[in-house]
Amino acid sequence: MLLNITPIIMSKSVFYHAGCPVCVSAESEIIDLIGKNNLEIVHLGEEQSRIPQAEREGVKSVPALLTPTGNVLHINFGASMADVKA
Amino acid sequence: MLLNITPIIMSKSVFYHAGCPVCVSAESEIIDLIGKNNLEIVHLGEEQSRIPQAEREGVKSVPALLTPTGNVLHINFGASMADVKA
Repeated sequence: MLLNITPIIMSKSVFYHAGCPVCVSAESEIIDLIGKNNLEIVHLGEEQSRIPQAEREGVKSVPALLTPTGNVLHINFGASMADVKA
Repeated sequence: MLLNITPIIMSKSVFYHAGCPVCVSAESEIIDLIGKNNLEIVHLGEEQSRIPQAEREGVKSVPALLTPTGNVLHINFGASMADVKA
């Protein structure tokens, strides 16, 4: 029996934010720098179901950029994950 | 008499760092994301004369990325500017 394992393909970066002013400003800069086509943009305030995954990936605050290599760049400081969950 | 004013052309981003482990890791990610040709990399520990300019540009800690639009993205936290000057 073959296991149905879908490989995780991380060609894009994921930009996590929560709609805060710092997030909006950083999003604009990141889009300019690396291009919208290279980004998945996730609003954790609107997609709360994605918070556990973001935390597993190492996101401590937003805005944050998960790179294709799996590292998290915390960019400026908008809100902690605790604030996002509240 | 014409004033000799050199316009500031900001086509590249400037990545400021101080050689700290967080800086080195972030530098690698930023190079992967936006390309080495789009970056000027400045080691403020080795080029202390550039610290005042970096501070005027809004750099509070390193690593930091000054974007072509003049905004500063503080990426993770390696060291404060006070630490860099010490």
